[in-house]
Amino acid sequence: MQNQTVTINPTRLLADLHQLRQFGAHKCGVHRPTYSPQDMAAREWLMERMREAGLSARMDGVGNILGENPRARHKLLVGSHSDSQNYAGWLDGALGVIYGLEIARAFVECGGDLPIGVDAAVFADEEAHFASFLGSRSAVGLLNDEEIDRSINLTTGQRLRDALGQAGLGAMPRMTIDPSRYDGYLEAHIEQGDDLEARNLRIGVVTSIVGIHQYRLTFHGVRNHAGTTRMAIRKDAGAALVALANHIDARFRELTAERTVWTVGSIRLFPGEVSIIPDRAEMLLQVRDDDPAVLALYEDELRALVLEADRKGPCTVTLEVVSQSAPHRMDERMQNALLDAAGVLAPNAFQRMPSGAGHDAQILAGVMPAGMLFVPSIGGISHHWDENTAEADIVLGCQVMSEACQNLLLNGVFPQF
Amino acid sequence: MQNQTVTINPTRLLADLHQLRQFGAHKCGVHRPTYSPQDMAAREWLMERMREAGLSARMDGVGNILGENPRARHKLLVGSHSDSQNYAGWLDGALGVIYGLEIARAFVECGGDLPIGVDAAVFADEEAHFASFLGSRSAVGLLNDEEIDRSINLTTGQRLRDALGQAGLGAMPRMTIDPSRYDGYLEAHIEQGDDLEARNLRIGVVTSIVGIHQYRLTFHGVRNHAGTTRMAIRKDAGAALVALANHIDARFRELTAERTVWTVGSIRLFPGEVSIIPDRAEMLLQVRDDDPAVLALYEDELRALVLEADRKGPCTVTLEVVSQSAPHRMDERMQNALLDAAGVLAPNAFQRMPSGAGHDAQILAGVMPAGMLFVPSIGGISHHWDENTAEADIVLGCQVMSEACQNLLLNGVFPQF
Repeated sequence: MQNQTVTINPTRLLADLHQLRQFGAHKCGVHRPTYSPQDMAAREWLMERMREAGLSARMDGVGNILGENPRARHKLLVGSHSDSQNYAGWLDGALGVIYGLEIARAFVECGGDLPIGVDAAVFADEEAHFASFLGSRSAVGLLNDEEIDRSINLTTGQRLRDALGQAGLGAMPRMTIDPSRYDGYLEAHIEQGDDLEARNLRIGVVTSIVGIHQYRLTFHGVRNHAGTTRMAIRKDAGAALVALANHIDARFRELTAERTVWTVGSIRLFPGEVSIIPDRAEMLLQVRDDDPAVLALYEDELRALVLEADRKGPCTVTLEVVSQSAPHRMDERMQNALLDAAGVLAPNAFQRMPSGAGHDAQILAGVMPAGMLFVPSIGGISHHWDENTAEADIVLGCQVMSEACQNLLLNGVFPQF
Repeated sequence: MQNQTVTINPTRLLADLHQLRQFGAHKCGVHRPTYSPQDMAAREWLMERMREAGLSARMDGVGNILGENPRARHKLLVGSHSDSQNYAGWLDGALGVIYGLEIARAFVECGGDLPIGVDAAVFADEEAHFASFLGSRSAVGLLNDEEIDRSINLTTGQRLRDALGQAGLGAMPRMTIDPSRYDGYLEAHIEQGDDLEARNLRIGVVTSIVGIHQYRLTFHGVRNHAGTTRMAIRKDAGAALVALANHIDARFRELTAERTVWTVGSIRLFPGEVSIIPDRAEMLLQVRDDDPAVLALYEDELRALVLEADRKGPCTVTLEVVSQSAPHRMDERMQNALLDAAGVLAPNAFQRMPSGAGHDAQILAGVMPAGMLFVPSIGGISHHWDENTAEADIVLGCQVMSEACQNLLLNGVFPQF
């Protein structure tokens, strides 16, 4: 193989992506929630395609699929997830899954004399219909049966155990990936933002996946009549929330980290009636950055603002940390292999960048070197059926990743190269 | 009667108030929703008390009760509503109802030779379990059968027709009050605010009942991923709402009307998920004042702020008028009679004041001169089971109203006095 080049087939790549799109087709996108009939049909189809390509495919007790190259001894794992968000886009997850399939079969086809190759991975429920990163966490040993027992579908309320049973997975064992069998994990994904597009670039090499801090702010005041209670004596929890949310936004804008994002996704007032002064109000605030120091800076600022508002009154304010995930660095060697390949195949059209969204790669990064590649999202749209990427970019991304895989594996076998 | 004084019986007044409190007792308050078994039992009990007092009592097809003095020809109508909000206070409505009963029977007992007296009125559903001011609007001819057909209970979803049938009112006709039979309508109520208490006063004479303007502000932006969408390009409908709500609050505080109140009772973000930038947000804003010019001033300001925010972007903002009720002036002669009585019985402990809440008196004011008297609410608490008023204030309020009734009726018969 040393003198052969692993070459992906663009026509087949695109055809398979469009084929996968038929499972749960909805408008221009897909509705393929984890373990739905259309999700399971897609997984069966993916296993067929793997077997046709000469891979040995098997699915486990949470729906994860591993398509193994039976001849290779030095291998990379390449994949993503095939479930979608509800009524969402056709490329989120699917792109990385078909890249894994295409690159794995390109290695099989290449048929060189070196024992190198790629295994294709398809994870389940990255989109958290039941639990975030369910499949990839199971694959690295971070999911226990107790969590499976208590998880329910956030949309339908169905119990995970029942969903697994209905999908025919109830009696099947779960697979754990043996990290010693892989040089590393690579995942491709649509960017889901507009940074590449805005800079007229075609490839992003992910430096790290952002950490996410989620907070709940709760305001307590006094419920009273909205007509008879003078403004001066009110303890209006809703008004306190609006004032502090506005203050937080203004102060956060003064902090200068370039890529930090924050979002208030939910606000609720209680009792929520037009003629009653709310005695309780809640907001959910999320902050994302790829630098732990920046996340800490924002949290310090947030705590100070909450404390100040609570002391000032007239309402009390409490801050609760709902969840905190640390940023996940992508492996330097993986990044460099992707950068080198992009330098050859997409000169002057690539950049290093953090990932603002979470991905299975952050879970795999806990057990092996991991890397990620982004292709542009048209208009930055994602988690919506209008999500799309130019076909030329889809093809280029797969070529870059394939080239990076070959270089990594060749250097793994012959470190002197 | 000219030389006799109509004298209410404080012990009986308080005993009856506490008796009425037993119907639907809940903690320190009551739960007596309109047409519930406990509400109907209370109405039956009120009719018994009226008949014991020598009044002819009858209930109509919406549960309104009229207790008539059979001998008097010059009369005032005095009353309020006996239904309560859900799990709320014991005096809201009940106080005015028992005042009506007590003053009506004091006139009967006085038994003077002048044909003057008071009829006691008990209205239904002022608290809008089915529709605001249902009973008093029916009594003045402002409720039609079509509205009865379509009204449903906001808590239980029961149809009004079914509730009336279940309460045994289905086949009964509705009474309309003949305004020509009354010199006017008087209603006593707890203040429901803390203005009297804060000024150490015991009687409030209502100048007008506030007008209420209700608005819905709707923000439209673009739904997107909370991790991958840069702050600079977001169109976050929730953030737009927080900013404008804060701005409105600040500007409204700069407008100087002394008693204007405004409330944001409800805020909703859509889809309301922590990781999704909201593409839609809604808030309900209510403004109350007793001066139409002040309400217009606030509305002008609101419209300007909404227009400015909409023009500035990045989200669109629309303003919708949900409802607008005009302020209702209380009759000058009624006010003066109450002020004169308070001057004698509560010297230096009374004031003129607007009512921040709506009351049946605003409906009656459409067909006859109407007046209202307030007694203090301890701590300003209302619409809560902790609602209360000092017994001395309850008694004083009834004495002032009784005195006012006597003076009004004597002057009505002998205008020269």
